[in-house]
This record gives sequence, structure tokens and C-alpha cells, in this order.
Amino acid sequence: MAHNQIQEALQWRYATKKYDAIKKISAQDWKTLTDSLSLAPSSYGLQPWKFLVIENPEVREKLKAASWNQTQITDASHLVVFLAREKVDVDFVQKYINRVAEVRGLPLEALDGYKNMMIENVAKSPTSTQWAQRQTYIAMGFLLETAALLKVDATPMEGFDPQAYDKILGLENSGWKTTVVTALGYRHAEDTTQNFKKVRFTDETLIQYVK
Amino acid sequence: MAHNQIQEALQWRYATKKYDAIKKISAQDWKTLTDSLSLAPSSYGLQPWKFLVIENPEVREKLKAASWNQTQITDASHLVVFLAREKVDVDFVQKYINRVAEVRGLPLEALDGYKNMMIENVAKSPTSTQWAQRQTYIAMGFLLETAALLKVDATPMEGFDPQAYDKILGLENSGWKTTVVTALGYRHAEDTTQNFKKVRFTDETLIQYVK
Repeated sequence: MAHNQIQEALQWRYATKKYDAIKKISAQDWKTLTDSLSLAPSSYGLQPWKFLVIENPEVREKLKAASWNQTQITDASHLVVFLAREKVDVDFVQKYINRVAEVRGLPLEALDGYKNMMIENVAKSPTSTQWAQRQTYIAMGFLLETAALLKVDATPMEGFDPQAYDKILGLENSGWKTTVVTALGYRHAEDTTQNFKKVRFTDETLIQYVK
Repeated sequence: MAHNQIQEALQWRYATKKYDAIKKISAQDWKTLTDSLSLAPSSYGLQPWKFLVIENPEVREKLKAASWNQTQITDASHLVVFLAREKVDVDFVQKYINRVAEVRGLPLEALDGYKNMMIENVAKSPTSTQWAQRQTYIAMGFLLETAALLKVDATPMEGFDPQAYDKILGLENSGWKTTVVTALGYRHAEDTTQNFKKVRFTDETLIQYVK
């Protein structure tokens, strides 16, 4: 992959404020975008996440009301709600182990060591909720970078009421909780933020070498 | 950007267990990798992070001892330690606002609304520490996807003692805390994990449509 293609994508992307509600993401682009979610890495490979794609316009309207009425929620071509496992418990670890055995054609007993390590380090941890939430941000990173490479606009969003989302999406008692949201589609010509200069601290501030 | 290039990169990457200690990342690749860190998005654009690149071999040895002796810490070409701001306080918000004014050529007063919103929503939040930590995982996502696109191997790592890292890196009372680590370089021919089948839950499990 050419360096300039990646560099251009990184410079091109910005958090889109206003979408063109007419333009839709193609099926081919969407496949690569969802593959970026499902193939994103997570600690131990546990994937303590789910990605809800909200197509229903009435649900989108309700979510918008729970998001300070930001128009990206209804106008973007696609809307992804990231869910994290509320408790990464022994059952969830077992479900993952079953999947490892299935995909790699291994007997379950061969995975006992791996399973017990995850139970000790994750399932028994008092902070498995926060741990799972952090993992979803890796997947969001992959989604956002792929979107930029495909010249699909995107908006990572934290400005919403997660409890209201959980209620609207029927997640209560499901074991899943909303963590973060990404709208995807195409910028409106009138979105003036696309012309703003990107603001970053200097490289010297951000990247430091321990020599 | 061609879809198959992205797809191939997503399939090709894996959490490398054993690095070839001889092979080094080129300067050109490294530039695109660090640009992926500094150009990664964060909530409000606040960048509550810093990226330490550990070049000193003795420091690497000490960090390895604080990482269950995982050889990636010493053998990988490059080692990035992600730091998150411990408290995203009013001072930090002001530093960012100063930078916005500088880059966009705006008077500070023009940014008062933006500043006050960040103070209310982030600086006054009791969970600004966890918020900052989550942001670093977006940057790690960008680093990992770019690495895969450039055919640079990488290992996202959480298996280490963050308090020991903070001590070794002299971060005590600095306002910064270690959150996560990524080793980067080239897989060793003997790393058998490169041949393991990638395990993911089915797309039907991970990606659900609300129609």
C-alpha cells in the first residue's frame, strides 16, 4: 500500500457535522466497513462487543432525540451503535472457547489453559466492564480508518445518553450496553467544518522517544 | 483504495508472538505509522494522550520484566507505550484551546463556548480518567490498521503491570499514566501462531441490523 494513500486518507477525514441525506454507502464499501469491525483485534481475541446497524427511521429519530438532536443520527447513510459486554463472565469466555475449538478443529480440553487464563484475568476482574468498553474503541478505530481509505465520511460520537440508547434499543437485561456511536455516509456541501484546519498538538509534544 | 488491499491487510494481521529481532521498520514506514497516531481522532479533538517510543535497550529489558517476560517487548523493532492523561483538567483543556487558536488563527474568546463545553463535559466529569484511556484505544486502532496496510507486524498488549511501567518510565506525578502497549516489527519465521486460523464470532452474531 502506498504511503501517500494512507497519508491522504488521514488528512482527508474529519468528524462530519452535516450529512447529505441522499447519498448512500454502496454494498461493496459497506462489506469492507463491516469486515473492519469484525476483523478488528481485541484482547485475547475475546470480542466482547456487538455492532448494531440502525436502519429503522423511527428508531433513528428516537436516538437523535437522545443525542442532543444531532442531525448525523438521522441523516447519515449508516449508523453503527457499539455495544460492550456488561460483564465478561465465565459463560462468555466459554462461548468464545467453543468458537475457537470449532474454527481451529481442536478438542475443548486443549484450550483449558487459555480459558482459565481469561477467567482469571478478565472474568474475575472487577473492571471487566471498562475493559470491554475500551476494546470497542479499537474496533471503532478500524472502522474510521477504513472509512477514510474508502472516502466514506464518518463521525465518531460520544455526545448522547447511553441509558436512553439502551432503553430505545431494548438492551435492558440483555447483558449489553451502548458505549459509542459512529455515523457514516457523505458530507453535505454546506458542512463548513470540512474546511477547518485540522488541529493537533505538535509531533514533539505527542510522540516522545526514550533513547 | 482497492477493497481487496484493505481486506487482505485485515486478514494478514495477527498478534505477533515472536519477532525477528534483526529486521527494522524503515524510516518511511515509521513516519506513516506515527502520523496514524497523531492524526487519529479523539473526542472533541482533545488528544488526551502521548505516545512513548522506547528505544533504550535497558529500559526495554526492565519493561519486559514488568510484562511477564514477553519477548515482543525487547525483540520488536519498535515499542510504543500509550499514555493517557490522568485528569483531563481545565489546564489541559486550555492548552488545547490555545493550540486551536494558534492553528486556526482565531482569537481565544471565539473559542469560549467550545472550551466551556469541554470543561463541563470532560474536565468536571468524575470519569475523565477512563474517558482518556478509551481514547488511546482509537489511536491504537489506527496504528494497528496502518501497520497491517504496510505489512508491518504488530502486537497490541495489555499483559503488563501498568504501575511498574509508570515507575520505570518516570511517570509518577507527571499527570500521565500507561494504558496499553504495542510492539511493531516483523514476525519471526518460527512464530507458529502466524499459521493459526483467525477466530471470529459469525457476522450474524457480531453485526445486527435494526430494521
